[in-house]
Amino acid sequence: MAHHRYTPTQYHVAIGSHAPVLRVASGDTISTTTVDAAGGDASGAVVTAPGNPQTGPFYVEGAEAGDTLSVKLDRLHPNRDTGFSSAALAANVLDFGYQPGFGDDVGRATWRVDTAAQTVTLIGPQNRLTGKPLPLRCMVGCFGVAPARGQAISTATSGEHGGNMDYNGFVEGVTVYFPVLVPGALFHIGDGHALQGDGEMDGTGVEVSMDVTFTLELIKQRTIGWPRAENATHLITVGNARPLDQCVQHATTEMVRWLVAGYGLTAREAHMLLGRLVRYELGNMFDPAYTMVCKVAKADVARLRS
Amino acid sequence: MAHHRYTPTQYHVAIGSHAPVLRVASGDTISTTTVDAAGGDASGAVVTAPGNPQTGPFYVEGAEAGDTLSVKLDRLHPNRDTGFSSAALAANVLDFGYQPGFGDDVGRATWRVDTAAQTVTLIGPQNRLTGKPLPLRCMVGCFGVAPARGQAISTATSGEHGGNMDYNGFVEGVTVYFPVLVPGALFHIGDGHALQGDGEMDGTGVEVSMDVTFTLELIKQRTIGWPRAENATHLITVGNARPLDQCVQHATTEMVRWLVAGYGLTAREAHMLLGRLVRYELGNMFDPAYTMVCKVAKADVARLRS
Amino acid sequence: MAHHRYTPTQYHVAIGSHAPVLRVASGDTISTTTVDAAGGDASGAVVTAPGNPQTGPFYVEGAEAGDTLSVKLDRLHPNRDTGFSSAALAANVLDFGYQPGFGDDVGRATWRVDTAAQTVTLIGPQNRLTGKPLPLRCMVGCFGVAPARGQAISTATSGEHGGNMDYNGFVEGVTVYFPVLVPGALFHIGDGHALQGDGEMDGTGVEVSMDVTFTLELIKQRTIGWPRAENATHLITVGNARPLDQCVQHATTEMVRWLVAGYGLTAREAHMLLGRLVRYELGNMFDPAYTMVCKVAKADVARLRS
Amino acid sequence: MAHHRYTPTQYHVAIGSHAPVLRVASGDTISTTTVDAAGGDASGAVVTAPGNPQTGPFYVEGAEAGDTLSVKLDRLHPNRDTGFSSAALAANVLDFGYQPGFGDDVGRATWRVDTAAQTVTLIGPQNRLTGKPLPLRCMVGCFGVAPARGQAISTATSGEHGGNMDYNGFVEGVTVYFPVLVPGALFHIGDGHALQGDGEMDGTGVEVSMDVTFTLELIKQRTIGWPRAENATHLITVGNARPLDQCVQHATTEMVRWLVAGYGLTAREAHMLLGRLVRYELGNMFDPAYTMVCKVAKADVARLRS
Repeated sequence: MAHHRYTPTQYHVAIGSHAPVLRVASGDTISTTTVDAAGGDASGAVVTAPGNPQTGPFYVEGAEAGDTLSVKLDRLHPNRDTGFSSAALAANVLDFGYQPGFGDDVGRATWRVDTAAQTVTLIGPQNRLTGKPLPLRCMVGCFGVAPARGQAISTATSGEHGGNMDYNGFVEGVTVYFPVLVPGALFHIGDGHALQGDGEMDGTGVEVSMDVTFTLELIKQRTIGWPRAENATHLITVGNARPLDQCVQHATTEMVRWLVAGYGLTAREAHMLLGRLVRYELGNMFDPAYTMVCKVAKADVARLRS
Repeated sequence: MAHHRYTPTQYHVAIGSHAPVLRVASGDTISTTTVDAAGGDASGAVVTAPGNPQTGPFYVEGAEAGDTLSVKLDRLHPNRDTGFSSAALAANVLDFGYQPGFGDDVGRATWRVDTAAQTVTLIGPQNRLTGKPLPLRCMVGCFGVAPARGQAISTATSGEHGGNMDYNGFVEGVTVYFPVLVPGALFHIGDGHALQGDGEMDGTGVEVSMDVTFTLELIKQRTIGWPRAENATHLITVGNARPLDQCVQHATTEMVRWLVAGYGLTAREAHMLLGRLVRYELGNMFDPAYTMVCKVAKADVARLRS
Repeated sequence: MAHHRYTPTQYHVAIGSHAPVLRVASGDTISTTTVDAAGGDASGAVVTAPGNPQTGPFYVEGAEAGDTLSVKLDRLHPNRDTGFSSAALAANVLDFGYQPGFGDDVGRATWRVDTAAQTVTLIGPQNRLTGKPLPLRCMVGCFGVAPARGQAISTATSGEHGGNMDYNGFVEGVTVYFPVLVPGALFHIGDGHALQGDGEMDGTGVEVSMDVTFTLELIKQRTIGWPRAENATHLITVGNARPLDQCVQHATTEMVRWLVAGYGLTAREAHMLLGRLVRYELGNMFDPAYTMVCKVAKADVARLRS
Repeated sequence: MAHHRYTPTQYHVAIGSHAPVLRVASGDTISTTTVDAAGGDASGAVVTAPGNPQTGPFYVEGAEAGDTLSVKLDRLHPNRDTGFSSAALAANVLDFGYQPGFGDDVGRATWRVDTAAQTVTLIGPQNRLTGKPLPLRCMVGCFGVAPARGQAISTATSGEHGGNMDYNGFVEGVTVYFPVLVPGALFHIGDGHALQGDGEMDGTGVEVSMDVTFTLELIKQRTIGWPRAENATHLITVGNARPLDQCVQHATTEMVRWLVAGYGLTAREAHMLLGRLVRYELGNMFDPAYTMVCKVAKADVARLRS
């Protein structure tokens, strides 16, 4: 269970079968840094081209297509004290013909990120949000594994391999599962957000560079169809597609499969449990592929199995 | 502020400009009963044709198109001790080609509804959910006001007028706002659910008949575009359409309008608040029109205005 | 086979179980008039409220739910020499954030309709389209039968009952089939277009009042799920929904059903025929429910059965 | 204007910045071969992994991002006498819950391809389609240029760069335009179809290997957003996305841009022309991204400019 420290010297704006920057064993922990969505690092300097640049990829020894990669998000820590966001909701989350009332200027907002106080505070533009601290809720916007058949998929979008899901539930302490699609899995990570509403409706999440620590574990011969996750209380499945309906279909089907294959429920029990108690959350409705998340409480699954 | 008691003798499976069963003043409270989705009453007898039969309509004196009707859900109380649900998720919430593994039999489940214990417990079919109490969470599946231009809209679906939204946040204590579209507003209510997961993914919500009490209040010359609601903590807007993307567009646009016109935020402030802190919930993904809900914490709005 | 002449004195902007204006026998022909989408008649006078006002309904003796109503469009003839259209594509058919370049002014265009020359010619606004004759292609935008369960459905939209499909293939000579959903079928017709592009992308079709003649025939005990049609060369099925994907699903499924139940193909033959030779056309992408049309050449069906 | 002959020795199942197999000048013509969707060559031998393997890429000297690549399809000629297709429509083009009636077996059909007689004839399975010649209509299912930002996009899907559009209008004689996104453009081609219905509703198009000849021409400093094409009679724009609504939005917006920037129409004229005379066709509704095509008659554009 080695703990690696890696300082990136290059980044990728497509998730693919790039040359690995580090080879690690299953169970190893990696501490590294991520730049912000625009390529800015801890000093604020732009060190790479924009578009959710990814740190990595990290090669996990022994990983093969058909396995599952477990990624425990041990620590997500902004490594500078300012972040930026858009200052307008995206056109595609509002009604056709809606006029924002402040022109076409999307604008850009600057935020103070205070990890000690655990707050995010608007510096500008000047309005009644300015200077009022909001909670710091660090999350990873874009991460995943290299896709199959030689693909390299833009970090603007997402798919079965993960990618730019922008789900604000991917926070410290969560374990995320990705399907291994190529040898070594080739894990990428980037696009830290200090605070993002559901759906990333303005296309941003107080974009910050981060110090990140995560543990990669290989689960051999367990095949999953879509990213899954679990936190202290819930099982989570993720669907990435358009329209949102299809995200829900993917996430729900994946949850049924998990409950049946992973927790020994009958299909009928899984259906009935979801009918009564399932929850959904909106990952993003901004990126080329949208994201919806399906959640089931672990306690409910446990009670059913008892 | 009269308190009316009304015992229904007929029901409607389309929400429209039917003859009112009661005329009330703004501020009046009504106690009545609703049958379950299949037309069953407190005794379990089927007293009307199935399909979310509605009690009403109730005519509010002075209500005109362009006004808003406020409906406070004072009490939602199952008036019998059993309910039913489907026993299978709907085909349209799962991947194309997915095979449920228990054949095409949707099945029907029977539940014990215990209002004293505040539980819902599966009676049958027999599996590991059977006999294990789940929380009672009473909600209204279908309610709303008569639509414009002489329409009568099926209680299977929903629209600007409300209808079959199947949002599990419409619980006791919530105030729901509907746009008044015809003289008297003509409020309808029915389709009580004792427990429903997000999205009503199996098309049901432990269907029960209920005793309901609600207070109708007229807000003159306030025009809204879509149903709105508020509970103790949140402002809520509702979009009913297909696909889910469009629900989100309607609900989000309506929330921006509410924050601007109702709470004095600038459009820029409203956009920025949503970008950081908005929440979404899935009403239903079963009915002909789906439902998504946009939520903003009242505390966040208050802080911004302070 | 009587030939009725009916002069309308009222119109409906929802298709529903209104009092019939005429009762006819199966096989009878009706000649009547329709006003334009804005309620304008042959003289150009606005005689009723706008929104695709319908002439009718016409009650067909003996029609019951589960039957099919055949509507042969014998004659569609503009009865005045001008029509109008929008002068801008609708926001929802263009990319989010697209700026038309001529401001938000949708504008209104006026057209000369010349039935002798069979042309439609732009009178204004003045640009390089003005004065250049385009072909006259008369069609019915909105027609259908009363929906089930007491509904009255706005003539802005469409469904299983027909309605505002705005398909430019509904021209003179075509026979359209509607599912009978209420006693008497209650056929409505209106919204004549002198020339409309695919999809009614600007929301209009050179809107004109018309003299119309059609023959209503009852097909007992044949049940269909969606509107169907046939012209000299093709079988046509119609799906009305959102998004367009769902229109295609409805229309394609209905075509398979038609080929199997109506033409004796095996399901496998129907699938294989469509895979090789099916055609689709875009009815409208403007109304609340969109429309896609599935087409199969009669010659291809005949060859397969020979 | 050289005429190159290239015999492929390798293929790609993602369109990306692979090493070019040939470098050609603008105006050069290339004759080569393509394998079928399953990797089968002229002899029927499977020579590469399945999934629309691409021949190429071809590097066009001088091509830079921001240019346009013109691809004239000079010749599309099946180079063997059999092809295959699915024998069932895809689940996602039919209604949820639809049961095909022949079980879940998609099946596979074999076809005789007769280039002399210009026919395609079903060999098996045995049914009433068997032995009856259908017209040979050769088309290219999947072709395009390397995408930007280091992406390699699966040949299962499509995007701004082209890809698996499966539009049955991409036939011999058509000129297709792709946006150049990387140096050299890097043109790929494969996935020949001998006969495909609209929408590729069964996911196949009588899959055949082909001899292909095409001419690549570079149009410097003309930037387009989506694939465009023209045949003898029409201008064509292509939108690739989900749902179909979004395909239409992309294709329509691209057509407006073309008419304005390429043909000197005002935006108002372009809007009004489309409103009256635009046509749409369904490329595919099978692949991860669907395809819709927008068409305008050249004669209509010419008349407007005269």
